[in-house]
Amino acid sequence: MKVGILGATGAVGQKFIRLLQGHPWFEITALGASERSAGKKYKQAANWIEDVAQPEYIAEMTVANCDPSEMSGVDFVFSGLDATVAGDIEKAFASAGIPVISNAKNYRQDPTVPLLVPEVNPDHIELIPTQTFTEDGSGWIVTNPNCVAVPLSIALKPIHDAFGIEALQVTTMQAISGAGYPGVASLDILGNVVPFIGGEEPKIAPETQKLLGSLSNGTITRPDYPVDATCTRVPTLNGHMAAVNVKLVKKPQSIDEVRSAVLSFKNPIAELDLPSAPKEVIKLHDEEKYPQPRLHADQEGGMQLHMGRLRSGVIFDVSFVCMAHNTIRGAAGGAILNAELLVKKGYLQ
Amino acid sequence: MKVGILGATGAVGQKFIRLLQGHPWFEITALGASERSAGKKYKQAANWIEDVAQPEYIAEMTVANCDPSEMSGVDFVFSGLDATVAGDIEKAFASAGIPVISNAKNYRQDPTVPLLVPEVNPDHIELIPTQTFTEDGSGWIVTNPNCVAVPLSIALKPIHDAFGIEALQVTTMQAISGAGYPGVASLDILGNVVPFIGGEEPKIAPETQKLLGSLSNGTITRPDYPVDATCTRVPTLNGHMAAVNVKLVKKPQSIDEVRSAVLSFKNPIAELDLPSAPKEVIKLHDEEKYPQPRLHADQEGGMQLHMGRLRSGVIFDVSFVCMAHNTIRGAAGGAILNAELLVKKGYLQ
Amino acid sequence: MKVGILGATGAVGQKFIRLLQGHPWFEITALGASERSAGKKYKQAANWIEDVAQPEYIAEMTVANCDPSEMSGVDFVFSGLDATVAGDIEKAFASAGIPVISNAKNYRQDPTVPLLVPEVNPDHIELIPTQTFTEDGSGWIVTNPNCVAVPLSIALKPIHDAFGIEALQVTTMQAISGAGYPGVASLDILGNVVPFIGGEEPKIAPETQKLLGSLSNGTITRPDYPVDATCTRVPTLNGHMAAVNVKLVKKPQSIDEVRSAVLSFKNPIAELDLPSAPKEVIKLHDEEKYPQPRLHADQEGGMQLHMGRLRSGVIFDVSFVCMAHNTIRGAAGGAILNAELLVKKGYLQ
Amino acid sequence: MKVGILGATGAVGQKFIRLLQGHPWFEITALGASERSAGKKYKQAANWIEDVAQPEYIAEMTVANCDPSEMSGVDFVFSGLDATVAGDIEKAFASAGIPVISNAKNYRQDPTVPLLVPEVNPDHIELIPTQTFTEDGSGWIVTNPNCVAVPLSIALKPIHDAFGIEALQVTTMQAISGAGYPGVASLDILGNVVPFIGGEEPKIAPETQKLLGSLSNGTITRPDYPVDATCTRVPTLNGHMAAVNVKLVKKPQSIDEVRSAVLSFKNPIAELDLPSAPKEVIKLHDEEKYPQPRLHADQEGGMQLHMGRLRSGVIFDVSFVCMAHNTIRGAAGGAILNAELLVKKGYLQ
Repeated sequence: MKVGILGATGAVGQKFIRLLQGHPWFEITALGASERSAGKKYKQAANWIEDVAQPEYIAEMTVANCDPSEMSGVDFVFSGLDATVAGDIEKAFASAGIPVISNAKNYRQDPTVPLLVPEVNPDHIELIPTQTFTEDGSGWIVTNPNCVAVPLSIALKPIHDAFGIEALQVTTMQAISGAGYPGVASLDILGNVVPFIGGEEPKIAPETQKLLGSLSNGTITRPDYPVDATCTRVPTLNGHMAAVNVKLVKKPQSIDEVRSAVLSFKNPIAELDLPSAPKEVIKLHDEEKYPQPRLHADQEGGMQLHMGRLRSGVIFDVSFVCMAHNTIRGAAGGAILNAELLVKKGYLQ
Repeated sequence: MKVGILGATGAVGQKFIRLLQGHPWFEITALGASERSAGKKYKQAANWIEDVAQPEYIAEMTVANCDPSEMSGVDFVFSGLDATVAGDIEKAFASAGIPVISNAKNYRQDPTVPLLVPEVNPDHIELIPTQTFTEDGSGWIVTNPNCVAVPLSIALKPIHDAFGIEALQVTTMQAISGAGYPGVASLDILGNVVPFIGGEEPKIAPETQKLLGSLSNGTITRPDYPVDATCTRVPTLNGHMAAVNVKLVKKPQSIDEVRSAVLSFKNPIAELDLPSAPKEVIKLHDEEKYPQPRLHADQEGGMQLHMGRLRSGVIFDVSFVCMAHNTIRGAAGGAILNAELLVKKGYLQ
Repeated sequence: MKVGILGATGAVGQKFIRLLQGHPWFEITALGASERSAGKKYKQAANWIEDVAQPEYIAEMTVANCDPSEMSGVDFVFSGLDATVAGDIEKAFASAGIPVISNAKNYRQDPTVPLLVPEVNPDHIELIPTQTFTEDGSGWIVTNPNCVAVPLSIALKPIHDAFGIEALQVTTMQAISGAGYPGVASLDILGNVVPFIGGEEPKIAPETQKLLGSLSNGTITRPDYPVDATCTRVPTLNGHMAAVNVKLVKKPQSIDEVRSAVLSFKNPIAELDLPSAPKEVIKLHDEEKYPQPRLHADQEGGMQLHMGRLRSGVIFDVSFVCMAHNTIRGAAGGAILNAELLVKKGYLQ
Repeated sequence: MKVGILGATGAVGQKFIRLLQGHPWFEITALGASERSAGKKYKQAANWIEDVAQPEYIAEMTVANCDPSEMSGVDFVFSGLDATVAGDIEKAFASAGIPVISNAKNYRQDPTVPLLVPEVNPDHIELIPTQTFTEDGSGWIVTNPNCVAVPLSIALKPIHDAFGIEALQVTTMQAISGAGYPGVASLDILGNVVPFIGGEEPKIAPETQKLLGSLSNGTITRPDYPVDATCTRVPTLNGHMAAVNVKLVKKPQSIDEVRSAVLSFKNPIAELDLPSAPKEVIKLHDEEKYPQPRLHADQEGGMQLHMGRLRSGVIFDVSFVCMAHNTIRGAAGGAILNAELLVKKGYLQ
């Protein structure tokens, strides 16, 4: 299938390009970026920050404006656009009959738009037909969550299914790549911690609740547990870590019961053999010093969710840490997996 | 007054030496360390890791064994000993009639030993006469808390006084200097987060509760709020950061009431003019991006407690972050301030 | 004396403010910055990145435009202006009869402008009367060198005096603070080395040669040794390290002769007791692992030059490393020391 | 072929295990380590520091002592042993008729032992028959160079062939992984530069000269250019950077002639299609800011040599920087490539 990348020169766009190299189903045939880049060869337009060589054929492609008329011939587009422009551009593509698999936040809370993590809520794709961008249903939008909501929702899914979440407290230690490029100034973060990330904390409740919600009759019924969150930036490159505390509706007998729920998690897309899916979705570490961003963020192609330090608390029923690669699992890789699911389910063809 | 340093070659011992240089009341006249170092000149025995020059007169001093008979002539000792040896050695000094101002954990929970932060519980020094190391009361031990319990207890003091703590949740991001030297391997922490620090989490409840307890008739009555904690190591040099959530017994009308309680905190030692005391004990930052270890850990000689992000929560009543220099406020500097208080109060003379 | 700061909100300007706090001779009475900041209170205009609290009286000062008419009443100004604007603004101040002690590069190679390091070429201030900014000589400019040329010139001075430099090879490892704020993106430097710094390498020959040149009859005669240099950026906060190799005109008998020359360096301003002058200008370390930015950059108020690894080579006669604090010794602190010298010598009064 | 790993639990040993996973020719059938580890399962004996999961079958293998009798059945061994023990153990294996492909330094300067980089001096394997460990020639040793000599020798090879090296000056910025585990203490290197690495500088001349030497009649004739070197440690994870200056015997007309020599380098093993060989041995970057450890060390499986900043000098004829992954190209990966060459050439079978 022919795909276009919106926001192709940015950090997320570069990750799309990297991850799609050699993809068995998808071939990049169009690159869209801002006016500043449009008309240039990609190698001149982009300040390449990936640690693999820029693919030759991409380097020589001419960047287009993010306009459906300039990127014709694609079967769908991935969007790594900045939220300041994603709203209009993604709508324009969907309205032109081009499905948009987006990493931007703009449509995440739209009740007709799936906020999708294939291992968590694959059935939410059934929302797609309720979208009204086109009359014939050919254009639509699917989004993936914020890079913190992704690991949280995966880690919480088996726990929520088994016990129900009553309250959630999260403290994150997030990697610099989450801020894009140039992003965080080195003087702000080298040997430092910044105890605030603008806009991050308020996303956790609505995004995890929509992801863990159940769809019926075209409507998602969300759990509405309270959330307290503190999001911080630390000097790691990739891999957002979260220290998580959860109160449960149904009390487990012991922490082993929770452990069992996690270990026996039934991955709903296991049978589909999607190219970007990790074999083991949740890796639960027993060593107290694990997981760690440097050691585990890249495992299984950066698509695995790592949990550790699973234990009982005294205020909360369960405490653990979880970590996943923020720009792969938490952004471009997650979007690609979404597209793969949508192919298998017949929405993309 | 003449003071000796136990564990003089270690990281905490070096910090004692650095901070006592030019101290108006205390002069180092004896250095004690392990057998391996004893008999050598300090400059040969110690791998100096402070970022100031080693004082000349210290460099030329001969290191003694940590034995009261080899360190005679001192009025008291500071102990930066490792917990594996501190128990016996500190007891030996106290029993020999030499007061011990200790940074080690061994006697922190002894009911006759003050666990002391001068701004939090200065009256706990009245426990000293209940100690039985010597018949005439000349030898005794005072301890300072763990480097996380120090900033926590200072930040919580005004809140506890005004509202009472009902439950406490803490996630820490701790600096590498907290692990001593050589401590954390660079391969373990460069660009990384380690979500566990051995022995750290279980100290938070008993130490903060003893610090916030009230002394009467020789006994400390402790608040016994539940604590859930996750302690992590991050690649910062100095300054332990903690993200804190607190449930309160008496509910504040609004977060402003909590803010007022913090801002109007009456420092109980303000009048004493102790040489190492910070002018402003608690610095409450309004900017959401503050405090930060790199910018604030060294302010007021590393003795200030920095709070920020004070806000209401939905599970907890109050959330904030706090940060203090872990090897100054949280270790050697705290011990020196303890000694200064004990001088003013007539215990050391 | 009343002083103004040009470029007061930038990284160098902030360092001037920090270092001048409590200065015995100089009081900041005016702050100049760009139009964007002018009219605001300093605390609103500046993104303070120093690790000490912003002085209260500075925080409340109103920022002016960098125009002599808006900053009247100052006896002279320090300039931390960016090179893109320093040329015109500094000329305007000098022409208005206000001496400029500048950190900018614009006038460093002007034959009438001293490029000054007090310990290296204090007599070059005699160039000042040859300047023609004003008819009465009341306005003039003195500059300090690039943050690499400063430590190099100090380290080379005793060697050049004793043996003469025939050829110089330098490889630097420079700190991120050298690029200002926001400066280097964290994604570019965390756990990384960037083997190029724009504009840096070509400054080393002309600046060190002018500094080591001899003034006579109003003209500086420069040594014209060839220089090969590679300048790199490494993830350190403060302190530019340089690995230096030198061929000498007069061959030393042994490395001890070079060591003696360094150790017996006669500091030409030692007698003047300038407030910002380090007591020991050159600290020559014997331990092979020293100097190090983290341990030594801040010693003696960040004004000391640290040398180490002094040894003979086989291609070059002498090899060593040297390191100094790039934003203190190599920028604002150096400029303040220049001003102090000019006061003592009667140029500023 | 069945292979054993000597020093299997160390940092280099772990890298061998990682790189050999899925290798088309070699299968690990024995793991040797020190007495402390022998008898344990690998997963218990090793503190795994690789950022991929430990292979299951390795985790369950029992570690043996590094004794030929305990590791029988292997066709040859890779040695990642520490130099303190490698001498005797490697000799024991060679004497027992088991070829040793070693990363240790002990036999690098033995005149009968090839110091081998396949792209530089593949013909040096002809030294093997001159070894006398066994009567029948079945046991022998081949070594790979120090992690700095590897990238240097590859970068210098085309230049030496075209112009001859007259003098070499090198300043390195080396990654922490080069010191093994636990290796460098984080307090020594976080935000720091250490301007000395024990034993590193003296290896550069003899190792690069042996590598660039020509073999004839069983003897290597070495170029004997002088070398001045400074080796430093910087806070990077993987990838040793070197800033290099070279004087040439035959003077190039211009830097373009040097560039041509590098670009037209004829890789002597290109035809052999060795599984671990990079497709492009030398990647010459045009962007002045490249190469960088973070972006380029892992390219082509960590086996590529990256050059950049190629330019003329005034003291030296040519200056450039070069960088390669120190524990892959500079250690385990290099040894595996050596073994692959030796298979193709019939020495291992």
